[in-house]
Amino acid sequence: MKAAFYDGPKTLRVAETTADDPGPGQVQLQVAYCGICGTDMHIFHGHMDHRVKMPQVIGHEASGVIVKVGEGVDGFQSGDHVTVMPLDPDGDTPACRLGYSHICEKLNFIGIDSSGAFQQFWNVPAFTLHKLPGDLSLKLAALIEPLAVACHDVRLAEVQPGEFVVVIGGGPIGMLVALVAQAAGARVVLSELDPFRLKLAEELGLKTVNPAAGDLVKYVFEQTEGAGADVVFEVSGAAAAAEMMTELPRVRGRMVVVAIYNKPVPVNLFKFFWRELRLIGCRVYESQDFDRAIEVAQSGSLPLDRLISGTYSLDNIAEAFARADGGGDVMKVLVECAGG
Amino acid sequence: MKAAFYDGPKTLRVAETTADDPGPGQVQLQVAYCGICGTDMHIFHGHMDHRVKMPQVIGHEASGVIVKVGEGVDGFQSGDHVTVMPLDPDGDTPACRLGYSHICEKLNFIGIDSSGAFQQFWNVPAFTLHKLPGDLSLKLAALIEPLAVACHDVRLAEVQPGEFVVVIGGGPIGMLVALVAQAAGARVVLSELDPFRLKLAEELGLKTVNPAAGDLVKYVFEQTEGAGADVVFEVSGAAAAAEMMTELPRVRGRMVVVAIYNKPVPVNLFKFFWRELRLIGCRVYESQDFDRAIEVAQSGSLPLDRLISGTYSLDNIAEAFARADGGGDVMKVLVECAGG
Repeated sequence: MKAAFYDGPKTLRVAETTADDPGPGQVQLQVAYCGICGTDMHIFHGHMDHRVKMPQVIGHEASGVIVKVGEGVDGFQSGDHVTVMPLDPDGDTPACRLGYSHICEKLNFIGIDSSGAFQQFWNVPAFTLHKLPGDLSLKLAALIEPLAVACHDVRLAEVQPGEFVVVIGGGPIGMLVALVAQAAGARVVLSELDPFRLKLAEELGLKTVNPAAGDLVKYVFEQTEGAGADVVFEVSGAAAAAEMMTELPRVRGRMVVVAIYNKPVPVNLFKFFWRELRLIGCRVYESQDFDRAIEVAQSGSLPLDRLISGTYSLDNIAEAFARADGGGDVMKVLVECAGG
Repeated sequence: MKAAFYDGPKTLRVAETTADDPGPGQVQLQVAYCGICGTDMHIFHGHMDHRVKMPQVIGHEASGVIVKVGEGVDGFQSGDHVTVMPLDPDGDTPACRLGYSHICEKLNFIGIDSSGAFQQFWNVPAFTLHKLPGDLSLKLAALIEPLAVACHDVRLAEVQPGEFVVVIGGGPIGMLVALVAQAAGARVVLSELDPFRLKLAEELGLKTVNPAAGDLVKYVFEQTEGAGADVVFEVSGAAAAAEMMTELPRVRGRMVVVAIYNKPVPVNLFKFFWRELRLIGCRVYESQDFDRAIEVAQSGSLPLDRLISGTYSLDNIAEAFARADGGGDVMKVLVECAGG
C-alpha cells in the first residue's frame, strides 16, 4: 500500500509500505479522506520535530471503511463507515482519573505521536471509532473531527439560544465554532481580517466584522444594548486578540481560548476582576462531541461542503500541503487516501 | 460630630461637621468600628483622585448601631446592630438587568464614590444593612465586609470538601480566603513572601510555602499525587504570581483572580488550552455572601480577632493609616469611630 511519510521539515514522501494486520482490539480502515489540520501544517514546517518521530505518517481528520477487524473487537464489522476520534489516553494519569482522559497527561494523539491517516490502510484502536450514518458522505465525514472541536468549544462555553457570541478568527475551526454557535441559536459575529474568509463567512450566513476596518468593540456593545457579548471565542492566537477579547464580554461573560499561543501574552486581568469575567480553555473533544458532530453533519443544517477548498490524491499530498500553506482562498484541504 | 476628610494625597483631616438627618429610605448609624481597606490606602496615596471627590469621608468596612430611621424604612429600628454592604447600584444598567447589580456599571461604592464610615454618624440606604446577631462584637463585625469578599470568592470558585487549594498572597483578603476555604473542607496552602504573614498564617493553622525559599509548584504536585491544585486564588497582584498561577492547577482546575492588576501582564494562555484551565474574576460580594460572612463570624470557627493588628480612635486616624501603610507586622487596622 501507499503511505505519506513526514521525513523532516517540508518533506512528505509517498512510498510503498506493508499493511500490517490489525492487532487485538484494533480495526483496519481503508482511509477514504483525511483533512489537513493546522497541526499537520505545524509538523510539516518542522515546528513539532521535538515530538514527532520520523519517518512518521501523520493525519488525523479521517473517514474510512472498515476492512479488517482484530481479535476481541465487538460491535464493528467490515464495511462499516466510520470516523476516528484520534485520542489514545494512558488511562491511569491524574487527568484520566478525574474523567478528562481526552486531555490525559500521557495522551497518544494518533496521527501526531503515532501513525496517522495519510495512507491507504490504517490500523486504529476500536475504541476510537464512531460509526457514520449511511447517508453521510465519506468526504463530508472528514470534517467530523474539526466539527467535534467546535461542538466541544460551544458545549463548554454553555452557549444559550439568543446569546450574543463573538468569534475571533475565521479559519476552519473559527468558522465551524461560529456556525455551530449560530445553529445553537446564538447571534454570532465573526471577527476576521482576511478578505477571502470574510466573504466566505458572509456567504455562509454569518455576520462579520473586520476589526482593522471597523470598531468591533463598538459594534458588539451597540448590538447588545450596551451590555457586551455573552461569549467570546478566541480562535486566532494573535496577541492583539488576547488584548481585545477582554474588552468584549458583558459582566460575568465567558471567554473561550481555543487558539494555541506559543508564548505568554499580556492579558488584562483587571477586566476579569472588574466585570467578573471568566476564561475557559478548550482542547480537542470528548466522545459526546463526536456524537454531536455526526448528528450536526448528518442533519445537513451546516454548509460543510463549502468549507472544502480542494481535494487531492495521496500521490499529490505535497500539492495539497502547498495549497493549504499558500494562504489566500483556502479553507479546508482534503487528501483522498484510498485511491492512492 | 467628628468626621475624617480625605483632602488629597496623604491628608486625612479630622474636623467637626453637622450630622444631617437620614433621608427617605435611609438610616443613621452611630459607627462603631471601620477597618482600613487596601482601597482606602490607594485613595490615601492619591491613586484614585480621578474618582474620589474631595473633601470626602472614606471608609466602608463598618459596624454600627442604628440611631435614627428615615421615612419609609421597614424592618430596622434604633438600637439594631448592623453592618453595611456598601454597594448602591443604579438598578437599570446591563449588569443590574442580568442580576449582577453588585458589579453594576454605574455602581456607587459607598465610602469611595460617596460619603463613608470614618465619621461618628453615617447615613446609609437601609437596603445596604445586614443585621448582626447580638452575640457578635461590633469590633469583630468590622471584619464582616472583607470576610464577605472571601466568602464570595470561595463560593464562585465552587470549592468542594477535600479539594486542594492554593492561595497566592497572604494579606487580609488572602488570609481570609484561605481560612474560609479551609473551613469549607479544602486542603489549603498559602503562598506568601513576608515573614510576619507567614508566621501569623501558621499560627492560625494554615499550611504555608514561601515561594522564594521553596518550590511551590513541586510542593503542590507532590501533595496532589501529580495532579495539581483544584483551585488557585490569585490575591497578590504580582506579575510573577500571574505567571505562576497557570503552573499550579490540575486539568480543568480553576483559578480565581481576586487581586487588582494595574496593567496587563503576561499570561500563559497555552496552559489554558492544554489543560482546559478556567479563570474566574471575582469582585466584592453579593447579599448572600454577607449573610454567610455573618454566620461564619458568629460561629467563632475562624480566629478573626487574630487578624486585628491595632485599633485607633477617629482622632488618631492618621496614625491608623500610618500603621496600615508601614508594612511589617500588620494585618487589619481598625478605627473606632463612635468615641471620636
